[in-house]
Parts: sequence; structure tokens; C-alpha cells
Amino acid sequence: MLSKKVTKDIQSLGLKKFRDESGLFVAEGPKIVEELVQVIPGQIESIFATEDWASAHPSEKVQLISEEDLQRLSQLKTPNQVVAVLKQFSPLEPDASGFCLYLDTIQDPGNFGTIIRIADWFGVKNVICSSGCADLYNPKVVQATMASIARVNVFYDLQDLWLHGQERIIYAASLQGKPLSSFSLARDGILLIGNESKGIREGFLSLAQEKITIQRRGEAESLNAAVATGILLSHLLP
Amino acid sequence: MLSKKVTKDIQSLGLKKFRDESGLFVAEGPKIVEELVQVIPGQIESIFATEDWASAHPSEKVQLISEEDLQRLSQLKTPNQVVAVLKQFSPLEPDASGFCLYLDTIQDPGNFGTIIRIADWFGVKNVICSSGCADLYNPKVVQATMASIARVNVFYDLQDLWLHGQERIIYAASLQGKPLSSFSLARDGILLIGNESKGIREGFLSLAQEKITIQRRGEAESLNAAVATGILLSHLLP
Repeated sequence: MLSKKVTKDIQSLGLKKFRDESGLFVAEGPKIVEELVQVIPGQIESIFATEDWASAHPSEKVQLISEEDLQRLSQLKTPNQVVAVLKQFSPLEPDASGFCLYLDTIQDPGNFGTIIRIADWFGVKNVICSSGCADLYNPKVVQATMASIARVNVFYDLQDLWLHGQERIIYAASLQGKPLSSFSLARDGILLIGNESKGIREGFLSLAQEKITIQRRGEAESLNAAVATGILLSHLLP
Repeated sequence: MLSKKVTKDIQSLGLKKFRDESGLFVAEGPKIVEELVQVIPGQIESIFATEDWASAHPSEKVQLISEEDLQRLSQLKTPNQVVAVLKQFSPLEPDASGFCLYLDTIQDPGNFGTIIRIADWFGVKNVICSSGCADLYNPKVVQATMASIARVNVFYDLQDLWLHGQERIIYAASLQGKPLSSFSLARDGILLIGNESKGIREGFLSLAQEKITIQRRGEAESLNAAVATGILLSHLLP
């Protein structure tokens, strides 16, 4: 059985305070953990797994635990075989060229993680986050990225100053823009995505040279921010 | 204070069994409830709201409740002013023409509801669901539709036979198809969306005349089913 101290330490990683202090975070489930082990082996601190997973993945980092221990460690409703503890990344200052995403106050962890997964699908290497975005290491964000957290550089613009002075063209997703179909492919640029209910803050929106609207043919009031990001990237990127 | 019976009856609508028996479902929060009251007033059975909302929306259907009652009634983590009880719809057999979506075993309630919202944004009037899809009246589905549940006809194909004999062109979202950019706009057709981890079942996939792939430029293994639906509709619909 796992010691109380280890159990408590891992459970505490559900809270940002303890993640910040320890520089660690948690990822769960065979699919995500196996991909992380492959892509970023150096970030893996330790792995706690039940018999099935542990026997198939022998490693000095893997500790065998009981189903009851797993229940205690897991942040998921349905714990699934394995919990990995990883070291947080040292994000790089984003490249000065190439297409990137700028997220303004995307607070919902599921949406935030899904956007990182979408960036990874479309080969967008840098995602810059305004001060009010969700925490990358929130367990719900990590799970929603589906291991894309290992491949996308997520950079926090804590002073909300990064967009100023950028020389790339800035596109903003907006309900009052030009129709998406009137835009051609872009090799370089910054796509600005806003909070679902409040949109992009005026101070940021005024920095955009191009405002893009996904044409609405029906009556829904808005699209989910992650869905809008996917649609825009699929049209804008070559 | 609300009676124990009423409280229990409304709480029980969190479970499919009781929703099926009563023919009722629940929607919550000012944004969604206000839109439902406007779009489908005849479906509203009763509304339970705290002072702020109730005083702004006087109606014989609105019953004033305390914050404590709201906590007890709500299925949300953060209850928000109002809980409405509505009558379920009588779904129509989908039109034999026009563009529609066919969902194969979309089980995640958030994804399922988001797809209905996307259909509504793009003016897709009919969404047909295979036998294994989530329940439309699951509270998480209802919340994710953001009131689009009132405008989209959701039809359950419980025998999994509906697709057979359809004369419209059937498109399938698939990782092994032709690139999306090679398709032109479609006024009529059926877009088949599969379960995220398992894809579209072979019996359905073989019915599709066209398999479409959203080109991957990066390394993520897959896209969320709702995001894929949004991308495909944004490219296919005129």
C-alpha cells in the first residue's frame, strides 16, 4: 500500500498552489501516459500503475499499486490503470515567425486543453496565453490535451504585453468581421481567440488587422471556442 | 421551502429512467432558460428560480425558491439562479432532403451537446443518432447544446437501419479518406461522424460514398469529434 505521505503529495497536485511549489503535474490513463513516456521520457518523475499496466511496462520508474491506491490517487471519475507524475516544462519564448495562437482568457479547462490538441493537429507549435487563461497543468487541461501537451510550447503572457509590437499579421475571431471564405491561406500570423462569453478584450481586439467571422447559417448564438479555433485553423493554414 | 416530493422529482430527472417515465427534462442557468422560454414556451412545464431571476421574469410558471432549494435541485457544480423543467420533444422523422448529420455512438455528453449546437450554427436541421449515442435529455447534453436543443430535430435511429436506402450522398469523417480540400460545397447529403476512439462502425462506413480526412499537419493522433464536425460542416456547406 502507498504511504499516506506519497498519496497526499500526489493528490495535492490537483491544486495549482502545490503544482507551482513542486514544479510537478499529473497525467492519467494508459493512452496519454504511454504517449508521454514515448515523447518526453525525461519529464517523467514517477508512475503508479495497477498490475495490468505495470507488468506490460516494466521500468524502474513504475511502482505497482493496488486498485484501492489508484482510486485514492486519481483525479478522474473513472480511474484507469495508471497515474504519472511529471516535471513541468520550461516554456520557451515563442518564435518570432510561424503561425501561432494567442488565447485571451480561455478559462474552461476542457476547452483550453482541446485547443492545445487542435494546435498540435494543425502543426501550430506555439500557443500564447493571456493572464486569465486556465493553468496548463490543471488535471482537466492535461487530460483534454490528449498528450499534445508534450508537443506544443505553451507560453504565459502574464503581463498581457506580448501582442504589442508583433510584426506578424494578427487575425481575430470575431462575430463582427469579414467572412472566413474571403481569407486566403496564411503561412505566418497570430490567431487571437477570445473568451466564449465575453469575446476578445477590446485592448487586444484593436491590435488585430483582420477580424474573421465564421459564417452562421442557422440560429445558435455562438460556437464553442475550441470548435471555432479548429474551423479557423483548418481554413487559414496551408 | 420546496416540498421533499417536488425536490426529489426534479432531482430524479438526472436519471434516464425517470426522464423516460415522466417525459420531462431539466435545463439550468439564466442564459439557456431565457432562450428556451422564448423559443419553445409551450414546452416549459415549470420554472424554479431565486429572487433575482424570478422578479425579473414574472410568470405563473415561475416559482420563487431559496438559494438552499436551488442547491438541492441543481445538477450543476455552480447552480445559477434558475432550474426549468420542460416536456420532451416529439421528434419528427427527418426530412428526406437537405443536409443532415448522422452520429454513430457519440457517447460523451459534452461532445454530443456541442455537436447539436454546431448543427444549429450551420443551419443543419436534423441530427440522427445511432442506438449507442448519449441521451439527448441528459443534463450535461442539454447544457452543452446552449439552447440549440430547441431548434434542432434530434432523431434516434434505435434499429441502426435509417442510413440504409438513403438516396443522398453519404460523407464519412475518416482518417483514411480524401483530403477535405478536394471536396466542393454540398447542398444535400449526410455527414457521418463516428465515436472518437473507435471511429465509425464498419457496417456504416461501407455505406459512405465519400470518405473525408481533415489534413493533419502536426502530430496529434486525433481531433475531438465535435471539433471535427465543426471543421467539416464549415467546409462542406455553402
